Amino acid sequence: MDLMANTLLSAGASPAMLHTLEEIPDFTPLAHALCLNVGTLSAAWLPAMKLAADVAVRSGKPWVLDPVAAGASGFRLKACLELVELKPAVIRGNGSEIIALSKASVQPSKGVDSSHDSTDALEAAKALAQATGAIVAVSGAVDIVTDGNRVVGAHNGVAMLQKITATGCSVTALIAAFVAVDQSHTLEATAAALSVFGVASEIGMSMANGPASLRMHLIDSLHGLDENAVISRVKITSFCEEK
Amino acid sequence: MDLMANTLLSAGASPAMLHTLEEIPDFTPLAHALCLNVGTLSAAWLPAMKLAADVAVRSGKPWVLDPVAAGASGFRLKACLELVELKPAVIRGNGSEIIALSKASVQPSKGVDSSHDSTDALEAAKALAQATGAIVAVSGAVDIVTDGNRVVGAHNGVAMLQKITATGCSVTALIAAFVAVDQSHTLEATAAALSVFGVASEIGMSMANGPASLRMHLIDSLHGLDENAVISRVKITSFCEEK
Amino acid sequence: MDLMANTLLSAGASPAMLHTLEEIPDFTPLAHALCLNVGTLSAAWLPAMKLAADVAVRSGKPWVLDPVAAGASGFRLKACLELVELKPAVIRGNGSEIIALSKASVQPSKGVDSSHDSTDALEAAKALAQATGAIVAVSGAVDIVTDGNRVVGAHNGVAMLQKITATGCSVTALIAAFVAVDQSHTLEATAAALSVFGVASEIGMSMANGPASLRMHLIDSLHGLDENAVISRVKITSFCEEK
Repeated sequence: MDLMANTLLSAGASPAMLHTLEEIPDFTPLAHALCLNVGTLSAAWLPAMKLAADVAVRSGKPWVLDPVAAGASGFRLKACLELVELKPAVIRGNGSEIIALSKASVQPSKGVDSSHDSTDALEAAKALAQATGAIVAVSGAVDIVTDGNRVVGAHNGVAMLQKITATGCSVTALIAAFVAVDQSHTLEATAAALSVFGVASEIGMSMANGPASLRMHLIDSLHGLDENAVISRVKITSFCEEK
Repeated sequence: MDLMANTLLSAGASPAMLHTLEEIPDFTPLAHALCLNVGTLSAAWLPAMKLAADVAVRSGKPWVLDPVAAGASGFRLKACLELVELKPAVIRGNGSEIIALSKASVQPSKGVDSSHDSTDALEAAKALAQATGAIVAVSGAVDIVTDGNRVVGAHNGVAMLQKITATGCSVTALIAAFVAVDQSHTLEATAAALSVFGVASEIGMSMANGPASLRMHLIDSLHGLDENAVISRVKITSFCEEK
Repeated sequence: MDLMANTLLSAGASPAMLHTLEEIPDFTPLAHALCLNVGTLSAAWLPAMKLAADVAVRSGKPWVLDPVAAGASGFRLKACLELVELKPAVIRGNGSEIIALSKASVQPSKGVDSSHDSTDALEAAKALAQATGAIVAVSGAVDIVTDGNRVVGAHNGVAMLQKITATGCSVTALIAAFVAVDQSHTLEATAAALSVFGVASEIGMSMANGPASLRMHLIDSLHGLDENAVISRVKITSFCEEK
């Protein structure tokens, strides 16, 4: 939650972190977008998450789901599948998480780490997008974003991000901030957020000596990014546009 | 909570973070001061907060309230107003939070960010201090501290602190540590804590490249501060002393 | 939890952080080791902790207990004593925590900070190890590890680690990762984890300007450690081998 909040602040957004059912009706309509992350899910938090998703949709605000370790337990998978029903604008996970959601089945693994490459998850992502109407993003060596038909690849980023906890969660939060700006281009906003985070990590990596200094330089770089730095580095490709 | 604890450790204090009602009676009397922060408030935590405030007062220990986003929901405002009744020695918030408490009304805003300047909140702060007997501190471009009669301004600090999550929470925790040392000078201790944190941020800023490196240098600077560095940099002004 | 996870990632392990009773039966058997930390204990978490310990033991996986502030309240002491019954492979605490567990008595103190040196706790550690069958490690100026009979001292580390929150928690998590590799040498694995963390802190300290930069360099150094760096620096002594 700390890294997610600092990612959003560095990018110019204004995060607030809430857990409580009681304040969702007052608070959620004021937000421009909602991010739900099931990382440390507990049974008590789930009703608040569902209500927040519901209030966001009724308020015309997009919401983004991070189905952390969706396939790691039946409890977690069921919760994620219930959230998927509540019309997220974007779902972002690693390959294993997206496959678990798409197949609605528990995928034994080591937990939050993906045992699938993002390209392996392409068909699962397309199916999930078609079934839910959400944009689906799969993080990996190349990040993939799809609406179920179009598929784009976002190529920026560094491998060492996997050695820092919550970088996946943080890019999901950044997607929420980007999607808030223009709801008519959700796929583009999602790819842009992944790319901007990836570019910031590349700039950060050039100054880093390990995961902890990368974490620091990543946030500093995200704060200092200008349009030229992004444009000169960003690499987004179209995988296919037919169906 | 992480940044709050590291702030306290760097300043030479000894933090402990507790959530549970069951251990308040044993634990709270051992503390020299208590800090209650409603940042990620949940209904289940509120009884423990109230009991801790009560035990602190009965033990003759000062306690400090950080009414994070007090005006953002009816639930949160009600909780903060109930806590305010329990005799905090200090209340520290941003302008919007202090106005919400003083007017006992929800203030729609973006959440934890203040939409009011600290000077706008001056009258609200004085009224809140008079009504509660607490020292009230309002963070802003200039921090203001008042007992309802005297008003001092603490001028140290850097704008980039607003790009780091939990810096407000952390300075509130530091106020608790300062107030613990000498309960007969709570206004002075509060202004001193704000100033010391501000000076550490200024020294840190001279080495920082962005919010994340500022966060690191801030804590390092707080740990390394000596009396001369503080005295040569600190700027506290008296706004008015009449009433 | 953040520093614990980043410690494990930097050391090449794969952490997952769970709170919920409902997913323990699915998830815990997949882990190679379990770490239970009572830092911010709440009554609601305790049943999940107990079930996780039970599932780990039945799955033949080692589990490690960090009895944070065990002697600070009756509630916390009772919880820790109940966990100790569930066959931890390792218990790691500071002197005050180990004495509280060994004597099963509340030890008034300032909380998480030890008011006892690790050598003072030697007899308590040996008694606790004999009573429970666990390896017991006591952090201090010299870390002590015992099976109740053999005692070794791990001498690496720097004093400034005490100015960073969760470094004790993090070394306990690292012990869990080391113990997972070879369950037939739990004492050696525990001493090795303490030494490796200590060596990383020494290398980090040579680049640090204070607690926050030490925290960063510690994690970077842990990630970059090679066998030669460890072997050339590590200092483990045998205190006694008779009994």
